[in-house]
Amino acid sequence: MQLEKFTGANVRISPTAKIGKNVKIGDNTIVYDNVEIGDNTIICNDCVIGEPLNSYYASPEAYENPKTVIGANSLIRSHSIIYADCIFGEGLQTGHRITVREKTIMGDHCCIGTLNDIQGYSTFGNYVRMHSNVHIGQHSTIGNFVFIYPFVVFTNDPTPPSNKIIGPTVQDYSQIATSSVLLPGVKIGKHSLVGACSSVTKDVEDYALVVGVPAKKIKDVREIINRETKQPHYPWPLRFDRGMPWEGIDYNEWLKGQK
Amino acid sequence: MQLEKFTGANVRISPTAKIGKNVKIGDNTIVYDNVEIGDNTIICNDCVIGEPLNSYYASPEAYENPKTVIGANSLIRSHSIIYADCIFGEGLQTGHRITVREKTIMGDHCCIGTLNDIQGYSTFGNYVRMHSNVHIGQHSTIGNFVFIYPFVVFTNDPTPPSNKIIGPTVQDYSQIATSSVLLPGVKIGKHSLVGACSSVTKDVEDYALVVGVPAKKIKDVREIINRETKQPHYPWPLRFDRGMPWEGIDYNEWLKGQK
Amino acid sequence: MQLEKFTGANVRISPTAKIGKNVKIGDNTIVYDNVEIGDNTIICNDCVIGEPLNSYYASPEAYENPKTVIGANSLIRSHSIIYADCIFGEGLQTGHRITVREKTIMGDHCCIGTLNDIQGYSTFGNYVRMHSNVHIGQHSTIGNFVFIYPFVVFTNDPTPPSNKIIGPTVQDYSQIATSSVLLPGVKIGKHSLVGACSSVTKDVEDYALVVGVPAKKIKDVREIINRETKQPHYPWPLRFDRGMPWEGIDYNEWLKGQK
Repeated sequence: MQLEKFTGANVRISPTAKIGKNVKIGDNTIVYDNVEIGDNTIICNDCVIGEPLNSYYASPEAYENPKTVIGANSLIRSHSIIYADCIFGEGLQTGHRITVREKTIMGDHCCIGTLNDIQGYSTFGNYVRMHSNVHIGQHSTIGNFVFIYPFVVFTNDPTPPSNKIIGPTVQDYSQIATSSVLLPGVKIGKHSLVGACSSVTKDVEDYALVVGVPAKKIKDVREIINRETKQPHYPWPLRFDRGMPWEGIDYNEWLKGQK
Repeated sequence: MQLEKFTGANVRISPTAKIGKNVKIGDNTIVYDNVEIGDNTIICNDCVIGEPLNSYYASPEAYENPKTVIGANSLIRSHSIIYADCIFGEGLQTGHRITVREKTIMGDHCCIGTLNDIQGYSTFGNYVRMHSNVHIGQHSTIGNFVFIYPFVVFTNDPTPPSNKIIGPTVQDYSQIATSSVLLPGVKIGKHSLVGACSSVTKDVEDYALVVGVPAKKIKDVREIINRETKQPHYPWPLRFDRGMPWEGIDYNEWLKGQK
Repeated sequence: MQLEKFTGANVRISPTAKIGKNVKIGDNTIVYDNVEIGDNTIICNDCVIGEPLNSYYASPEAYENPKTVIGANSLIRSHSIIYADCIFGEGLQTGHRITVREKTIMGDHCCIGTLNDIQGYSTFGNYVRMHSNVHIGQHSTIGNFVFIYPFVVFTNDPTPPSNKIIGPTVQDYSQIATSSVLLPGVKIGKHSLVGACSSVTKDVEDYALVVGVPAKKIKDVREIINRETKQPHYPWPLRFDRGMPWEGIDYNEWLKGQK
């Protein structure tokens, strides 16, 4: 590149931030108080890491920024805003312009897509992949290896507006397809698949394919036949390994090693 | 905070802008000609206030920026773009990265969520709360105490594409839940509730719960029982007061004072 | 304007970029290596043009930025990110904060709305108009004079997650209304209309109006009567010409000239 991507221009880093080895920080990026960034992480241009919480505005002088942790070997793309009081494991990858609010706890090797809007007060396991424009309401609980597709919304208020907030829960390996909405408090079992444009109003069993407004069970995901291969596709870890810890091994072999 | 949030770096303010007392303006923010900002308002970093209209590009020399008003005691979060020729009352609160186009008229104490896209030529009453990623098409009319949830769209072209634009109308106290779409020209009565993922193709009566694609009336909202309290929840002003003018008083008492 | 919009502050342009005559580049905008910008084009503030591809991060020293072309007479609004290896024809107009990834090929006179998220590896004809927040998945194919409305998603993975990616195809003159989703591999014929909130799971014939989850054919678009005029509205080029090449002529006259 003739034009350098990382020139250090207008970068501001708090003296209380702890920056790991071999970290790159893009132009115009701000790293606020008490942020910890792991080794080899890249934060691209125009990001805000450790954005002060709302209570800052009420009393800026008294305000202390809570700790924020970005794990090692992460890549946060440009124009992203991550509030203080979030913890991310290793290998985080993000798109552009994500917004993540406080008390978001995320495991290792997660992906947060472009324009994701994570409202905080939620937990995510490892290897969660969110495509663009996913909206995660407060008090959501998401397991491991969950994939969430564009414009999916996790809601949390059963009688809007109210002060009763109950977020959805999604268990390991489930897939929530494009533009679906999880209604407040629903529980999605393991290895299930919510079809595109669905409104999930009730709990979903393990291995269920549900579709519709409201979503209804169509079949067991293990009965779904791939149009190309004429073979079953689910449980998907047997047929897909890109970026997964069983990549190049075999899901069942990897699973044995986990026990 | 060891790292200051408001340093004044790269702030540009037009000499014709009128800035109230005790206003804070974040780094990299631009305030264009003929913007008026009320007392005690905070505009965070990387905002554009009074963005010139499209006609600027046709003849920049002749262009005059129309007046833009941001009321007192407001908080506009970072990376927001507000076009010229908008008027906002007092106590506006916004999320990050909002886009609001010209001829948007908004009352007092409104909230505009992160990534809202308000296309202008629309009016909003007082205490309207829009959650993230709401899209308000041109020529929409929204009353007081209306709450609009993520990914709701107000459309306006009955035979796309055409030059006939008729926006929806939503009356006081109504709630439009997540990912619903209001079709062109529909009128939503008072105190109604549009359920998540609905497509509203016809007018909705006062106090109606409507759901579905297309949305159909399910029941009167006053028949909805809160799962927790086993009590009715609607009309919601009787059970919810956070941030409302009847907070700590009582809705009926407050209502008497209004007459 | 008393406050200038284009001051040149913090603009960075690669020495290998080719900038046409009478081009304006907004403050804080970056133009990376091997970008070509046609005459009379305006790039507003805070844009990134020719964003380096993901392979840059793996080996920044070895990385060479592929060619990126922005046609003449274009207007790219602020805070937009266009990756390298994209080609746009003349007269491109964009909203704010668009994100366009590599291998996007777009014809002349297209519009990309605010917050569009175009994932790349897709082709677009001439006069394609995308409203706000459209999401185009990889391997989509879009003809000429196609209009796509807010929150429409083009998906591409029939058995998520998988490595089999087959994008949708939309032929000339078709309209995809608000919040609809095209499922992987569907083909939408010419002059068809997908109603709002639809999930298109099967191919759609020419001139068909389809609506619903899943979308079903309701009628021929030529049977749709405009509520105002009491006349048919489709095929729409007979009744709408704003910004079209037959503006002020007549669609049928223009069509003769095309042959």
